[in-house]
Amino acid sequence: MSNIVSRGWENEIAARVARVAESLRSAGADAILISSNANLYYITSRVIAGYVLVTADGEVKHFVRRPVGLEGDTVNYIRKPEQIAEMLGSVPGVLALEFDMAYGDVLRLQAAFPGAKFVNGSAIMRAVRAVKSPFEIELMRQSGVRHAMSYKSIPHIFSEGMSDVELQVELEHRLRLDGCLGLFRIAGQSMELFMGNILAGNNADNPAPYDFAMGGAGMDKSLPIGANGTIIKPGMSIMVDACGNFTGYMTDMSRSYKVGEVGELAERAHQCSVDICKKISETARPGVMAKDLVALAQEMVDNAGLTDYFMGHTQKAGFIGHGVGIEINELPVLSARSKDVLVEGNVMAVEPKFVIPGVGAVGIENTYAITATGTECLTNMPEELMQLL
Amino acid sequence: MSNIVSRGWENEIAARVARVAESLRSAGADAILISSNANLYYITSRVIAGYVLVTADGEVKHFVRRPVGLEGDTVNYIRKPEQIAEMLGSVPGVLALEFDMAYGDVLRLQAAFPGAKFVNGSAIMRAVRAVKSPFEIELMRQSGVRHAMSYKSIPHIFSEGMSDVELQVELEHRLRLDGCLGLFRIAGQSMELFMGNILAGNNADNPAPYDFAMGGAGMDKSLPIGANGTIIKPGMSIMVDACGNFTGYMTDMSRSYKVGEVGELAERAHQCSVDICKKISETARPGVMAKDLVALAQEMVDNAGLTDYFMGHTQKAGFIGHGVGIEINELPVLSARSKDVLVEGNVMAVEPKFVIPGVGAVGIENTYAITATGTECLTNMPEELMQLL
Repeated sequence: MSNIVSRGWENEIAARVARVAESLRSAGADAILISSNANLYYITSRVIAGYVLVTADGEVKHFVRRPVGLEGDTVNYIRKPEQIAEMLGSVPGVLALEFDMAYGDVLRLQAAFPGAKFVNGSAIMRAVRAVKSPFEIELMRQSGVRHAMSYKSIPHIFSEGMSDVELQVELEHRLRLDGCLGLFRIAGQSMELFMGNILAGNNADNPAPYDFAMGGAGMDKSLPIGANGTIIKPGMSIMVDACGNFTGYMTDMSRSYKVGEVGELAERAHQCSVDICKKISETARPGVMAKDLVALAQEMVDNAGLTDYFMGHTQKAGFIGHGVGIEINELPVLSARSKDVLVEGNVMAVEPKFVIPGVGAVGIENTYAITATGTECLTNMPEELMQLL
Repeated sequence: MSNIVSRGWENEIAARVARVAESLRSAGADAILISSNANLYYITSRVIAGYVLVTADGEVKHFVRRPVGLEGDTVNYIRKPEQIAEMLGSVPGVLALEFDMAYGDVLRLQAAFPGAKFVNGSAIMRAVRAVKSPFEIELMRQSGVRHAMSYKSIPHIFSEGMSDVELQVELEHRLRLDGCLGLFRIAGQSMELFMGNILAGNNADNPAPYDFAMGGAGMDKSLPIGANGTIIKPGMSIMVDACGNFTGYMTDMSRSYKVGEVGELAERAHQCSVDICKKISETARPGVMAKDLVALAQEMVDNAGLTDYFMGHTQKAGFIGHGVGIEINELPVLSARSKDVLVEGNVMAVEPKFVIPGVGAVGIENTYAITATGTECLTNMPEELMQLL
């Protein structure tokens, strides 16, 4: 038997529950019923099959289907969600449900709480999770250190004549040996990724269907993203953007490499990306609007005459950064139309990247925490366009 | 520019569209609007960001957001789903939508088709996809050959003193080098898995929250499944159940290994699993009910006095097999209450497994295609409890 809240997480989970309760009160909701894995992990410190009810008063009840053997005053074992209302004895007047969950599942929950009014709990949880605690940022700091350590092996695992896929497989191996959990958690159902991507040469200009910053054709039409078997040759840049999930909390980091010489345009674009990250890291602080950081980046790109290559060439991404935490696509969103205003505790990946036709992708990506007065970079390693051969 | 239907897939996709149209007519639906990645891949031969409309008359229209550069008479580029009804000029009377998609997304589509009646398109597609064509079975046959090839490396990559995680990382590396795409596609939002699992010793008896046949504590509470860092020692059995997605179509296969001697009970349970697979492979054919195969397995288990260990010990799985294809959890379901009747073209993983306390998991899993007269095993390799050391 083990307690449903993991040892050492008790105070942290209590604070998270209090924040969710406060958000429920602001939203005019009496309770939220959580059932997505990412939110269950957030609110209990573990993934369960089941539901967690948090009320606006800060009460918590766990309704568990699996695993067996969890204990605590708040733990109730159930077979089906219809038992929850029965066990509660009364139905909350306004109940938040995760509208990002399957339509069929939400309808079933709605039927199980007759008379309740339903509001979007996914939006509530997304806003709460956008502001990380020191506990969460420490987990991301740990991921960042290990993420960088794995990347430092790249010059050693690369060898002449390798394909992008071979380099990727060797890096995946390194990451996993270094403790990467492998799983890339992505909110929503439309984005799929294995363990991140390596883009070499012109494959970076192959448009993908997914809402990632970069493309690549992939190895199969069933997963059209990333490395496509390109043999890495002199004159190519290679962008590495691989999974940094070592602790349940991810960092997102990209670094770029070159083989031989890649020309002035690619070198200049890479430096522009480094400069943008530096500028954003110096500008971002609580109260700054995300869209103003995007405008700042766009201005630097336009002034450098690199507009055509920024955030893709044949197909462009609609953002230059995004929140990161349990999932890779959290708030805030760094896009031209974003309404997000930075607050202390936001953690954001900034990825001002370029695709240079005939050369490949260049640029970097760092994960920054927003502190009381500025930013802390969680992904520290050299940023230059590194020579592989 | 490339055609939306991949070269060589034209006839196959036309036949799939005809089958979907037929199912729509049976369900009394005028059209289906497909937007999940697995179903988009099924109906177009590639993943896109967008929607595919198939009518009961067998007409197809593609509404694409990304990637740029797809062509064909049926391809329409859109920015948002609200444009679809506008482009069609009329709203289907009965429209099937995927009820497994997010509640918020389904509500948005419903609002975009005012006046239509909506039925569950996920159920329609699940039933269509449960019956594989010879083209699909050939892709799975190819995955099975490569899946088995990767597993054959296991005795070579194992070394004394390894942990379950280390063995898993080395097998993942082997699988990826052999062409495994890595991604484990799972229908629904509740199950998460990286690249399959290795269970060593008593970790097999750690209950997991997910609806997989076996458990394991995992390395982190954020992903509580599979290997947990157990050092592999004499007296332990090791079960390997890793990702067989080499072609977009997966095979599912488990094999078990031992270090030193594991005792009569584990040896007998393993042989019982092999015997059950053999019996099911000889019994299954079109017209047989899935639940009768489960009853047959249960009878063999009970007669062998192995009931307490079957499909888990501390926590038991509710099924002994499942359909497999683009996703790992397709129809038919092999459970005691399943209403599924086998038909030619079903492909099912059969995994009668045991957990022996103090020893570990034993047993095998094979993927079988249902032929006109019986079964074809797609995962051919030795089935005995193999000695690692």
